[in-house]
Amino acid sequence: MKNVEHAIRVTPADAPRTAKTRVAVAGATGYSGAELVKILARHSGAEIVAKFSSETFSVDALVEAKPDVAFLATPNEVSADVAPQLVDLGIRVIDLSGAFRLGEPSLYPSWYGFEHPRPQLLGEAVYGLTELCNGELSKARLVANPGCYPTSILLALRPLTYQIDRTQPVIVDSKSGVSGAGKKADVAYSFTELFGNFKAYGIGHHKHEPEIRQGLHLGERTAFVFVPHLLPTDRGIYSTMHVAFIEPMSNDDLAAIYADAYGNSPLVRVLPPGQMPELKSVVNTPFAEIGFQVVHGGRRAVIVSVIDNLLKGAASQAVQNFNRMCGYPETEGLQ
Amino acid sequence: MKNVEHAIRVTPADAPRTAKTRVAVAGATGYSGAELVKILARHSGAEIVAKFSSETFSVDALVEAKPDVAFLATPNEVSADVAPQLVDLGIRVIDLSGAFRLGEPSLYPSWYGFEHPRPQLLGEAVYGLTELCNGELSKARLVANPGCYPTSILLALRPLTYQIDRTQPVIVDSKSGVSGAGKKADVAYSFTELFGNFKAYGIGHHKHEPEIRQGLHLGERTAFVFVPHLLPTDRGIYSTMHVAFIEPMSNDDLAAIYADAYGNSPLVRVLPPGQMPELKSVVNTPFAEIGFQVVHGGRRAVIVSVIDNLLKGAASQAVQNFNRMCGYPETEGLQ
Amino acid sequence: MKNVEHAIRVTPADAPRTAKTRVAVAGATGYSGAELVKILARHSGAEIVAKFSSETFSVDALVEAKPDVAFLATPNEVSADVAPQLVDLGIRVIDLSGAFRLGEPSLYPSWYGFEHPRPQLLGEAVYGLTELCNGELSKARLVANPGCYPTSILLALRPLTYQIDRTQPVIVDSKSGVSGAGKKADVAYSFTELFGNFKAYGIGHHKHEPEIRQGLHLGERTAFVFVPHLLPTDRGIYSTMHVAFIEPMSNDDLAAIYADAYGNSPLVRVLPPGQMPELKSVVNTPFAEIGFQVVHGGRRAVIVSVIDNLLKGAASQAVQNFNRMCGYPETEGLQ
Amino acid sequence: MKNVEHAIRVTPADAPRTAKTRVAVAGATGYSGAELVKILARHSGAEIVAKFSSETFSVDALVEAKPDVAFLATPNEVSADVAPQLVDLGIRVIDLSGAFRLGEPSLYPSWYGFEHPRPQLLGEAVYGLTELCNGELSKARLVANPGCYPTSILLALRPLTYQIDRTQPVIVDSKSGVSGAGKKADVAYSFTELFGNFKAYGIGHHKHEPEIRQGLHLGERTAFVFVPHLLPTDRGIYSTMHVAFIEPMSNDDLAAIYADAYGNSPLVRVLPPGQMPELKSVVNTPFAEIGFQVVHGGRRAVIVSVIDNLLKGAASQAVQNFNRMCGYPETEGLQ
Repeated sequence: MKNVEHAIRVTPADAPRTAKTRVAVAGATGYSGAELVKILARHSGAEIVAKFSSETFSVDALVEAKPDVAFLATPNEVSADVAPQLVDLGIRVIDLSGAFRLGEPSLYPSWYGFEHPRPQLLGEAVYGLTELCNGELSKARLVANPGCYPTSILLALRPLTYQIDRTQPVIVDSKSGVSGAGKKADVAYSFTELFGNFKAYGIGHHKHEPEIRQGLHLGERTAFVFVPHLLPTDRGIYSTMHVAFIEPMSNDDLAAIYADAYGNSPLVRVLPPGQMPELKSVVNTPFAEIGFQVVHGGRRAVIVSVIDNLLKGAASQAVQNFNRMCGYPETEGLQ
Repeated sequence: MKNVEHAIRVTPADAPRTAKTRVAVAGATGYSGAELVKILARHSGAEIVAKFSSETFSVDALVEAKPDVAFLATPNEVSADVAPQLVDLGIRVIDLSGAFRLGEPSLYPSWYGFEHPRPQLLGEAVYGLTELCNGELSKARLVANPGCYPTSILLALRPLTYQIDRTQPVIVDSKSGVSGAGKKADVAYSFTELFGNFKAYGIGHHKHEPEIRQGLHLGERTAFVFVPHLLPTDRGIYSTMHVAFIEPMSNDDLAAIYADAYGNSPLVRVLPPGQMPELKSVVNTPFAEIGFQVVHGGRRAVIVSVIDNLLKGAASQAVQNFNRMCGYPETEGLQ
Repeated sequence: MKNVEHAIRVTPADAPRTAKTRVAVAGATGYSGAELVKILARHSGAEIVAKFSSETFSVDALVEAKPDVAFLATPNEVSADVAPQLVDLGIRVIDLSGAFRLGEPSLYPSWYGFEHPRPQLLGEAVYGLTELCNGELSKARLVANPGCYPTSILLALRPLTYQIDRTQPVIVDSKSGVSGAGKKADVAYSFTELFGNFKAYGIGHHKHEPEIRQGLHLGERTAFVFVPHLLPTDRGIYSTMHVAFIEPMSNDDLAAIYADAYGNSPLVRVLPPGQMPELKSVVNTPFAEIGFQVVHGGRRAVIVSVIDNLLKGAASQAVQNFNRMCGYPETEGLQ
Repeated sequence: MKNVEHAIRVTPADAPRTAKTRVAVAGATGYSGAELVKILARHSGAEIVAKFSSETFSVDALVEAKPDVAFLATPNEVSADVAPQLVDLGIRVIDLSGAFRLGEPSLYPSWYGFEHPRPQLLGEAVYGLTELCNGELSKARLVANPGCYPTSILLALRPLTYQIDRTQPVIVDSKSGVSGAGKKADVAYSFTELFGNFKAYGIGHHKHEPEIRQGLHLGERTAFVFVPHLLPTDRGIYSTMHVAFIEPMSNDDLAAIYADAYGNSPLVRVLPPGQMPELKSVVNTPFAEIGFQVVHGGRRAVIVSVIDNLLKGAASQAVQNFNRMCGYPETEGLQ
């Protein structure tokens, strides 16, 4: 197929590179977009051929710049509209919005507030939680870059898929720094309102909830409770998770499972059993950190994961995906 | 009995008062102690006849000041040693430490690190979660003022005692401002380490865990998971709780239960269903605020409560107890 | 004159009060307005007969409530328009905006951006820096409540009027918590932008500059440099001031001058020489604190003052003025 | 001389390098030391052959590792004692303490509290404010890395040496993040005490005062007023400076002077006239930023500079100096 050929042509993962990959960024002045531009600017294999703020962005201008890969750090509706056009023109897309994260089109009206304009692409889009992807990124035309909360949660719980007892509730208490809300002129996100404050919000209706459910393969039968909180700091996500196991597990069992899952992942650090991560260890870095401790005689565990919401939860993971798509080392530009 | 007579003599709850109640404060320069002194100084019925820092405190000096009531904002071991002496001398004691909170003496060595020196008093001590006390405070010789985490959790969950399904886990994710750790010269609590940081700590071995279990009447059979976190702010506790119900409940059911429990409590505010409290609403106040929302078709709920850890979690609750003990209006000195 | 008679009738400073003073508040939902309402609600002599947010405010509705005193926590242009109407109707006004602070009408177009609609009232308005007022407040029809920066600076420097060498520069480095900017939906004041940040702003064109110059009686000949900074906290103003003296002064000389100025002022605390105040000592209180230290052999001094910008810098000072106007003790409602 | 020959041998600035420079770090676990290790670890020309915490450090162990260059992030007295020993053994030293910053030995007892053990070396030590150094670093045996406050102030004021009127006061209002105080177990630097707080400290007796005076060549005749403040953030220094000029200057004049001074300096950014820097622009970076604005008809100016106290104010400047000493590009390891 022409588009894929085009993509393959410009990114020979196994051949010596002679030219840089041409990249464009839409939404380059939001918090995630700005981080993305910073990373790409120091990436040895990427050449930024165009970048657009939300005010200056147009599909025509982006296409004119002839990028090989376009990063969309745009609102959900914009991405849903633009990504298909680019893909049709043979431009590979890494979309940082939620527009292509859910496989099931019928979820869009209720959770995102719009009818999906191109449901066929939902099946093709690769959900880019990098560490959990295999070869599929190398030829992907469209990558749905995961949400920040889902990244922190899925990295921690996906390796335990076969251990978690789905007849028991899966409970996730997440806390996010304020930049997670984006660059907003809103009294509710003003310094004076949030300084020294803390609060839960969006219980039962946060957009990331179906994305997490999908990532964990949880049916409606499983009680999944996701409580996001706003943390009075600028960056970082801290997820505290509570699961029950089908059979009792020891800390060593969990350590072995995580070692197996992430032993070769340069950007995920698993802590020794019983040691809980702190937010600052990962803020301003592309790393995720995971801590765990069995409780209740091994029938349950508390699992904690931390990421920088703008990096591993957005921009740096997008570049990890870019690296996999185009054959660069996974951490290129990230260290 | 002499002691009680003494106590009764000085605090005739139903007679017009002619003299102020003489109070002494030990541990007056810690964070809780300082708040206590501030409140008592503006209390119309209290006269502070002595106050001691931990350096200047001695039992003899306190006794010499002839207080009717002594507030102990002292370390656990000190309180365990001093409170019995004072009680024996007819001085009523409100102890802000954990020394008399647990009814079961055998828990002290493992959770507090010392053999309890006067286990007989554990049975007599009144656990002073004010709103859940009845007449027992009015004649109490010794009040064990609850811990900050337990106060936030028990206020929220105790009214649901008959609804909560104990065969299901009770999960509590609590976050505390740094003053909860006390006035400490410790790099781990320094500004530079904690600014912009967040972390879980003490899972499975926090001193408040048996106190919460006891308050909820949870046996070993019930999976109780308590995860305290350190919040990068100075004051306030935010507890997010997850429970299952024996029978499905609606938001209206919960509203009715809480209205019944706290309709006459001037210092507990229950929010409308689905509205979550924010920390700042209670910081620097003696109030607790409770929010709730049923999930999973009413089979479960998320319940959130907030308090100021130094006030409702310590000093102002101590004064609520003092007011009940001595016949003052419950909010005297607190508004 | 009728209006003054009216005022005198309702506020007989030296006669026993039989009725409460009726007060109205316009702008009651801004940060200062909300603090004002909180204070007035616990004021033993005030009855709030009407309060308005900026959306609900109308002159007619306010007048209809028949207040004796109206507090205007409204934008400059609104106050400039409304205050004269109220004064004409015999309602005494305490204006928290800048509309009546400058005596010289010609300063309004350049510093405030509008031609003053009622310049005659500028001469009559009493500049309500309470501690520096004498009897003039008791009969005032219109009080211009000082700005937050000017309050912090004038309290510190006015007592030194005859010592300061005006041929030398007067340099003021002020830092304000973010609530000083008001309740604003503006990315520049969002949590994410300001967390961990600090910056100077408005050098040479801050609205408070002519107000400070006027308060210090500084002519154009004196170099006056005022540098406001935005401090990453919610409340409080910290002003660091640098002055030269006509003749060398000792710390004792300064201590004597300040003792003389504020010995009878219940809400100004002067620290011992060389001890510098900290912001938290006054946040959430109606107090000002002043520290000082001579340098350069007594030829110069560093003077520091702190206030809560929303209280002594706005709402609590407005109530101090109200108390003086209506014959209540100066600290009524404030402690 | 042998030592210099040794130094020259290992760091041929103009010859192709074949081996890495061997470096050791003493004090590697303090805040500055840890940053230093992070930078050196990614430096293409440095090989860390030894690093020591303050507990594990000994001169013998360091010498045994055969470093070409030793970084000392140690207390003043330790550096004063150790640096001469290393220099005598031919190991080049970059000292991050104040032990060799002052040229005049007699200042040490009064400002640092100890008699200098090796005053002869004070004359030889190069004061490493990198941008203001010329060739002297390339052959230096001992570099005194500047203090954080002095770096921020001297970078801003040194270019104006010939314009500043020394008969007028030079006034510096500096604000530092809390990490400037080091890793300290001290209640005064605890999170609870400093959260939301701000205060001036050390007026007239801060160790950095003589260092700044020396750097500005200010005699006792010039009134120099330095007021450091503690800022409630973890990192960054913000200095607001006030100077008078011998002859009136325009903003353009200043712009030209700064362009001349820093046009070729990759790590100093000069902002357009009237634009003031914000702290966050430089936090976590090796950059300094300078803003300026003439006032009082050009007879005076307000000048503002910002740095990260742990980087440009300590570790990254140490590496800039290392790069100059050893012939690496100035920004190697820093971007």
